[in-house]
Amino acid sequence: MLLYDFLPSGNGYKVRLLLSQLGIRFTLVEKQIFAGETRTPDFLAVNPNGRIPVLELDDGRRLAESDAILFYLAESTGFLPADRFARAQVLQWMFFEQYSHEPYIAVARRLRHMDRKPVPPELTERGSEALGVMERQLAGRTFFVGDVYSIADIALYAYTHVADEGGFDLTGYPAVRAWLARVAAQPGHVPITKRDFA
Amino acid sequence: MLLYDFLPSGNGYKVRLLLSQLGIRFTLVEKQIFAGETRTPDFLAVNPNGRIPVLELDDGRRLAESDAILFYLAESTGFLPADRFARAQVLQWMFFEQYSHEPYIAVARRLRHMDRKPVPPELTERGSEALGVMERQLAGRTFFVGDVYSIADIALYAYTHVADEGGFDLTGYPAVRAWLARVAAQPGHVPITKRDFA
Repeated sequence: MLLYDFLPSGNGYKVRLLLSQLGIRFTLVEKQIFAGETRTPDFLAVNPNGRIPVLELDDGRRLAESDAILFYLAESTGFLPADRFARAQVLQWMFFEQYSHEPYIAVARRLRHMDRKPVPPELTERGSEALGVMERQLAGRTFFVGDVYSIADIALYAYTHVADEGGFDLTGYPAVRAWLARVAAQPGHVPITKRDFA
Repeated sequence: MLLYDFLPSGNGYKVRLLLSQLGIRFTLVEKQIFAGETRTPDFLAVNPNGRIPVLELDDGRRLAESDAILFYLAESTGFLPADRFARAQVLQWMFFEQYSHEPYIAVARRLRHMDRKPVPPELTERGSEALGVMERQLAGRTFFVGDVYSIADIALYAYTHVADEGGFDLTGYPAVRAWLARVAAQPGHVPITKRDFA
């Protein structure tokens, strides 16, 4: 398998983390998104939406959108529940991540940590709301769905564990902090900076 | 089943459309989102993220996020492919909708059509990019995945068919327009304004 990716990307990291935990070897094809490498004609032929990550299977078929890739890889494994309702709950948290969490927490990190620019207060406010929703869900639970580590946890871990780089202080979110530690302690866990997967 | 919803919402409409096409009767519980009815303590007990739609099953279990609800309802029906890769492609387009389409096309509609405010040029530009991605995918295809009508089409139809209300002109997107007509011609199709479902 090939993974078109950008190493600092939390969206890419989700896929790298699950592939590692599934024991699947793959080749990382790095694209420097800030240098426009995902907007070239060649890359737009890979993904017309011009974004990483993209997973390319050995037969050449390609899949975009980090959380769709997670779902594909996790089907029939312990990382996705077999129960229909629980599976939908996993998707609920993954859509929450892409709609209510990533556009604030990941974008704040991009601005502050990578571009060295100020973070608009609205991003900080909306990101804090998302952390508050996570805190309420995790109070009294070990993981997001059914108290079993799943791709919902992987999806939300990716940008939450580096939220400080966007200026978010997790002190007021003890359940989130305890959950981050539980996720990091899972077998096969790898850091966002890991580069060698082949 | 109960559906907590707001009638003009495209996200809610996705669920109403699929429920209608599945022949499932349900009770609509209307929440006036502009009057703050999804931010009350009572509603936050229903969905801590304070958003509609929320589906409540007869046993009281609840599911949020429109596209997670679609997936739950569509499993084991003709609206979701049985093939694992095709299922992931459906999710790819649903995550595209929530991340690259809805935040521009739905928000432009909200501003222009409901709030009677100007639409920032960036929203128009990003929304047009999303329409361009759809146009390329639909050229030579009848539906988004596997040439079969699925919840990927329902998810993308919801806000695309009212994109004009956000100031988008679909004249330059002939494949999108032909697809909109095909979706509207599906058995059991209902308009976004339909209110009586019980």
